[in-house]
Amino acid sequence: MKLKLSLLALLCSAGSVMAESAPKNIIYMIGDGMGPAYTTAYRYFKDDPNTKVVDPTVFDTILRGMAHTYPDDHTYVTDSAAGATALSSGHKSYNGAIAVDTDKKPVKTMLEVAKERGMTTALVATSQINHATPASFASHNESRRNYDEIANDYIDNKIAGKLPVDLMLGGGTKYYVREDRNLVEEFKAAGYQYSDDFAAMNDLKQVPALGLFAEVGLPFALDENPTRLTQMTTKALDLLDGQNDKGFFVMIEGSQIDWCGHANDIACAMGEMDDFAKSIEQAKAYVDKNPDTLLVITADHSTGGLTLGAHGQYKWETDVIKGVKATAGTITKDLLESDDLKAVWQKYSDIEFTDANSIKLSEAKKMGEKALLLAVKDIINHASFTGWTTGGHTAIDVQVFAYGKRAEDFYGSQNNTAIADKLIDFIKQ
Amino acid sequence: MKLKLSLLALLCSAGSVMAESAPKNIIYMIGDGMGPAYTTAYRYFKDDPNTKVVDPTVFDTILRGMAHTYPDDHTYVTDSAAGATALSSGHKSYNGAIAVDTDKKPVKTMLEVAKERGMTTALVATSQINHATPASFASHNESRRNYDEIANDYIDNKIAGKLPVDLMLGGGTKYYVREDRNLVEEFKAAGYQYSDDFAAMNDLKQVPALGLFAEVGLPFALDENPTRLTQMTTKALDLLDGQNDKGFFVMIEGSQIDWCGHANDIACAMGEMDDFAKSIEQAKAYVDKNPDTLLVITADHSTGGLTLGAHGQYKWETDVIKGVKATAGTITKDLLESDDLKAVWQKYSDIEFTDANSIKLSEAKKMGEKALLLAVKDIINHASFTGWTTGGHTAIDVQVFAYGKRAEDFYGSQNNTAIADKLIDFIKQ
Ligand SMILES: [Zn+2]
Ligand SMILES: [Zn+2]
Repeated sequence: MKLKLSLLALLCSAGSVMAESAPKNIIYMIGDGMGPAYTTAYRYFKDDPNTKVVDPTVFDTILRGMAHTYPDDHTYVTDSAAGATALSSGHKSYNGAIAVDTDKKPVKTMLEVAKERGMTTALVATSQINHATPASFASHNESRRNYDEIANDYIDNKIAGKLPVDLMLGGGTKYYVREDRNLVEEFKAAGYQYSDDFAAMNDLKQVPALGLFAEVGLPFALDENPTRLTQMTTKALDLLDGQNDKGFFVMIEGSQIDWCGHANDIACAMGEMDDFAKSIEQAKAYVDKNPDTLLVITADHSTGGLTLGAHGQYKWETDVIKGVKATAGTITKDLLESDDLKAVWQKYSDIEFTDANSIKLSEAKKMGEKALLLAVKDIINHASFTGWTTGGHTAIDVQVFAYGKRAEDFYGSQNNTAIADKLIDFIKQ
Repeated sequence: MKLKLSLLALLCSAGSVMAESAPKNIIYMIGDGMGPAYTTAYRYFKDDPNTKVVDPTVFDTILRGMAHTYPDDHTYVTDSAAGATALSSGHKSYNGAIAVDTDKKPVKTMLEVAKERGMTTALVATSQINHATPASFASHNESRRNYDEIANDYIDNKIAGKLPVDLMLGGGTKYYVREDRNLVEEFKAAGYQYSDDFAAMNDLKQVPALGLFAEVGLPFALDENPTRLTQMTTKALDLLDGQNDKGFFVMIEGSQIDWCGHANDIACAMGEMDDFAKSIEQAKAYVDKNPDTLLVITADHSTGGLTLGAHGQYKWETDVIKGVKATAGTITKDLLESDDLKAVWQKYSDIEFTDANSIKLSEAKKMGEKALLLAVKDIINHASFTGWTTGGHTAIDVQVFAYGKRAEDFYGSQNNTAIADKLIDFIKQ
């Protein structure tokens, strides 16, 4: 029996190498700032306290490993540009780098490789579509701040040649329609369908297409449309499905998880996580129907130093967070405009309007918007026992999730560049 | 070709079920409080800034998945007792529970199952050996605070009968040699070798044996012996090796990672992580020599809300931390006893003794030990850009590492109880 099993084992390992071909389509999702505290938080945020068991989330069903996010220096804490450059090209670089190396020379990205191979390519984001993460897939710049140059590069790509991206959905009209250049008209002239109306997104019937649904980033999920990324994901997969024998590559970013983290706004963050999770459900369903597709999900870094539990208390109050109906920014704006702080507070939050909270808010209001915003967040973070240590990023490893063809290649602890290396390898096959 | 491959795939999946038997020996290591920020921190702490690549740690080589740590209520934040009860028995319980369920009824632990099956059993910890984590493997109590009752239970076990643990190495003479009962004498009378001298640990030549090397917990690694857990691990595996055909079960705890986390003392935490990592190296080497052994490593929860990077800065200064030569508690005691704050500071830390730091420390010293301790930690945390949000625990998922026989069973996202369920299943086979 022993001999038979070893022979079988040998055949199996050989077989697995022989049998496994590369996926045809790749869906690459990046939760910007989505460190492990965010996915844990989301599980408990979604938990029904009336049932004994805490149900797993979509993340829990497809966790494969973790990734090291450090940039190409010894600061250990990356920004979104260096993070996305690692995730798009397999090259570590400096903070601020958009698909360039430490010598500021362009490095080829997986989207550009996919384009070269004749695949259809797409970018979807809730930020402006020329923000650091999508930018690092289809443009090259020494600085993430050069938004206009990055948008130009989506047409005049330095490596892949003209128009490397067949489909873009996100925000950013401010950078596309400018005095010096009207990129929207240039895309239209190149045959792209165009929409700037989210409600009319379905008017986009085929690729190539460009959808710019906000001047800069889209509004926060919690403030306006809780499923705008989910809807853009569905639309993108619809447009990409089956229209190219060589397959497609799409990068879908939950851009604003990071923004809520920078703001230390937990309700905002959970709104973004919910939209991102629902987008993942859409992508998973696509893989179920198209098993030659690989779905990989990761984050570029964690943001804000989020912790569940704070100030020595052994609890995290999800009911408080579920009761918050808008971002702290929106609550603050309304408090500034109203004389009835209590009415505004109770419109947006279940947290009791105690004397202490009343004094805190009215004192802060006298000091101006910034102080009031801090007071609003302080009350919510205290009541929910949510901790934050920074308005920036942290170095903690992020998770790697995968589903579909070759998902098993992402098990274990890996450098963020290794994720890109594997995906580029698949695209080249 | 396609048919052949599917047939092979079928045989392979059948083969893997047929071929895999349970491991003979189980080494279960728990890093108390060791959330993902600690293992990430340890990688960068050990990094040589003079080389371009950041080398992986022992943790990185064997990461398999993550675990959900919530206790049996909807607070989501566990303590070490409920955490260890889940990890030892597969039962979620309330915070404070030592291997009892929410009705305070004893639940059987994997150590007790192992004992029933005739395996040799062992507990190793840097805390007192009757502290929450080891206690939850070999005793049952409604409260972790009942230290005397827990120590008694190591002799008069409620479920497994007398003397369930064959080998114990840790601290705790205070709880063993008492006015009402002298457990050391009782263990000796039952045939246990005994030592209370760490330097003479090698006098223990065989199991059963008891080593109690401190009144309560052992001194911090950073303050005294940087490898005391590593040495106890080596000794335990030495004593356990090959002396029982039915194999052994040992739980080895890096107890004081948690204590440094509660203290928000990053240098202390890195000292404990280093001792724990080296203990894991020992265990891995044992598995390499004895491939019928399974090594599983996890944490009960994360402590302190540790973040790498803080206050908006995109860096984590490991040189600062490497330059700290004692725990904040020890530095504080020396500062209290000396009139030359500068000399004491420079003895223990490379951080510049600036005027600001000088004033901060001397002002704090006037207010007493507590204020001075806070000032010492504040200077170190600020200089290193280390963030903390709490003196307690947080709810973030922890990592699961495994190596050796059936290590692949621990891939993915899982409840902490599932780790226990799998191990108990192996022990029963
Ligand atoms: Zn950011
Ligand atoms: Zn603790």
